[in-house]
Amino acid sequence: MKFGTELMRQADALGQFTEDPPRVTRTYLSPQHKQAGEYLIGLMRRAGMTASFDAMGNIVGRYEAADLKAPVVMTGSHQDSVRNAGKYDGLFGILTAIACVKDLHHRGKRLPYTLEIVGFGDEEGVRFGVALMGSKAMAGSFEASWLDKADESGVTLRRALADFGGDPDAWPGLSRRGRVAAYVESHIEQGPVLLNEGLPVGVVTAIAGGSRIRVTVTGLAGHAGTVPMGSRQDALTAASELVLFVEKHCETHKGLVGTVGKLAVLPGAINVIPQQVEFTIDVRSGDDALRRKAVAAMQSAFEEIAKRRRVAVTVSPFYAADAAPCDSALQQEFADAITAHGIPVRLLPSGAGHDAMVFPAICPIAMLFVRCGNNGISHHPDETMTAEDAEIATSVLLHFFEHFDAAAFAVRR
Amino acid sequence: MKFGTELMRQADALGQFTEDPPRVTRTYLSPQHKQAGEYLIGLMRRAGMTASFDAMGNIVGRYEAADLKAPVVMTGSHQDSVRNAGKYDGLFGILTAIACVKDLHHRGKRLPYTLEIVGFGDEEGVRFGVALMGSKAMAGSFEASWLDKADESGVTLRRALADFGGDPDAWPGLSRRGRVAAYVESHIEQGPVLLNEGLPVGVVTAIAGGSRIRVTVTGLAGHAGTVPMGSRQDALTAASELVLFVEKHCETHKGLVGTVGKLAVLPGAINVIPQQVEFTIDVRSGDDALRRKAVAAMQSAFEEIAKRRRVAVTVSPFYAADAAPCDSALQQEFADAITAHGIPVRLLPSGAGHDAMVFPAICPIAMLFVRCGNNGISHHPDETMTAEDAEIATSVLLHFFEHFDAAAFAVRR
Repeated sequence: MKFGTELMRQADALGQFTEDPPRVTRTYLSPQHKQAGEYLIGLMRRAGMTASFDAMGNIVGRYEAADLKAPVVMTGSHQDSVRNAGKYDGLFGILTAIACVKDLHHRGKRLPYTLEIVGFGDEEGVRFGVALMGSKAMAGSFEASWLDKADESGVTLRRALADFGGDPDAWPGLSRRGRVAAYVESHIEQGPVLLNEGLPVGVVTAIAGGSRIRVTVTGLAGHAGTVPMGSRQDALTAASELVLFVEKHCETHKGLVGTVGKLAVLPGAINVIPQQVEFTIDVRSGDDALRRKAVAAMQSAFEEIAKRRRVAVTVSPFYAADAAPCDSALQQEFADAITAHGIPVRLLPSGAGHDAMVFPAICPIAMLFVRCGNNGISHHPDETMTAEDAEIATSVLLHFFEHFDAAAFAVRR
Repeated sequence: MKFGTELMRQADALGQFTEDPPRVTRTYLSPQHKQAGEYLIGLMRRAGMTASFDAMGNIVGRYEAADLKAPVVMTGSHQDSVRNAGKYDGLFGILTAIACVKDLHHRGKRLPYTLEIVGFGDEEGVRFGVALMGSKAMAGSFEASWLDKADESGVTLRRALADFGGDPDAWPGLSRRGRVAAYVESHIEQGPVLLNEGLPVGVVTAIAGGSRIRVTVTGLAGHAGTVPMGSRQDALTAASELVLFVEKHCETHKGLVGTVGKLAVLPGAINVIPQQVEFTIDVRSGDDALRRKAVAAMQSAFEEIAKRRRVAVTVSPFYAADAAPCDSALQQEFADAITAHGIPVRLLPSGAGHDAMVFPAICPIAMLFVRCGNNGISHHPDETMTAEDAEIATSVLLHFFEHFDAAAFAVRR
């Protein structure tokens, strides 16, 4: 195997840089971030790239084009992890790109564009509560106020950056606005679609937009033995209907997923009819209009159900993000690379967020998904990827890099 | 008003004997239990009774028949309360009986039986985790091992009894087995049935039996954005169907009530499909066969739903108590007393447990329910009873006492 075995070994090695072994946890600007970055910088340099940390702790490697005026193409993913994570989320996208450059370099081949590989310092937002800070700095959407965000120990981002060896005031200079022809990212799917269809890779159509909603159902508490069924205003049986409505609506409208992940019952005693239930809804879709219609449909159905059941319901949307569509021409380039490997092309949306989602503001984006084992489980130690799939994904990405005419692409747009 | 106003005043006065003013909380063998008992003993003595604490802390008053060989009839209810209780639960049944005796005494009237009024020390089981200990001691079903039960501070029942001035080893002598012709109890309904029907009192047909069940639904966690609806094994949407089945089954089978009062979701994160849900079911009925069939129907429906949804379900019944039927002849005596007051007779089951439920083992029982205001709320500061209803209920109970021929009743049985 040309790439797969080595990539598995590298992922294992990076898994050692963790804050709570044997679990994998690597947060932004931790000592383990530094170690992982130094490891990646080493790989980049041995692959023929210049590489270093930037002022925000992003790990940036450049494989220069022969022509210094050639366009720049960016790729990469994030170095940080959630708590008790898997080994491939984020890191694979950095490693697979380095493997491509290493192969090009060994063959003495330069690209008609400078390829910039970035290991973003922060995507998950675990430490400071703000996600995607690494990629946002490079996409020109970093916000100065985030420097005052503090972690659980009270250490601010500003202080952590200085301690890390970065420069908290240098972020405006990191923006690639007007300087990048395209951003492409390879990532483990984190879901079961490719697994269920027996495909090693797929092309992402859009990174889903999402709405998050808090719902409170208020009924009337009562003694479980003394209130006849017909006289009840049970907040939990009402909430159960709402939960099933969310499921049904998303099942019957292709392109939506909806999840009630948190639900709490008050007062929560065996022999007391529930007075109040609070729950959250997470709705996602690659199609923003479809998602907005779903939220509206839920609101009106909830009001109807609440009225019929004589309970009160409040529906409070508290977060919404639009979908980030992938560029159709770049999708086609990935599709061609997959077809060249004799693999059917599967187009699929990404339900999870990724660094790529911040870049449509400055350049076209595309993503390649790689099959996720174990029923698609991710953000968990059971996350798996096979060496065979890593091999195919890297070969497809390399095909893309070798066939991509960044200058013509920039003109066409 | 002959009784009502004074009973309201007495209930207010007893509400002052509380462990956490302004809330009403009075647990077994607390200093407030002693104060409430002394207050009740004072009322009893002024009403012409002999009265004192017994060895278990029960407050026992006797209104002796002229004939020392006359039968004994028992009445009363519990002096203790839940935390943050109402003022009428339990206490009303003691006060209304004392008011009857006071009236008889003022008229110089003796009954053809000795009337024993008991304020049971413990019914709610708040302090030592065992309910109905006061009445069980008198019904001959106290268990010696309970003496070693400890409260939250580690004080055992044995120690608390000794400190209270009781005698932890004297319980066997308190049993009334073979010595009582009947036990009757007046109690606030703790539900909305009489309130909804505009009736001040009703006759209890049976104290419901109950089953308690713990249910665990195990699905598969997953990312809320990446797992398509059709691939999910969502423990919460499955549990929602089970909750609605419990409700539907109890709605469509008259004589049942069923409640899911506790429900917890794991892992309980906005963006994670629920892996596991645990909930409890409380099912009650005056008809034991109906209740057992309901539990069986739930079990088989749950398995079917779980199979369809590809989740696992475990159903663990952990408590069951049979119904305590009220004696039909005694019910008729109460019905006659109500009819004599020009009030329609409403027969209804008691969904809540009461001291009366332990006495069928030694004598026939009956209960008179009194309308509960505020939508039937109880075990809560909002519990209310009007002076008018207290008046009617006491007058009905007095009618019962004056017309009850305990000797003939004992022979008839």
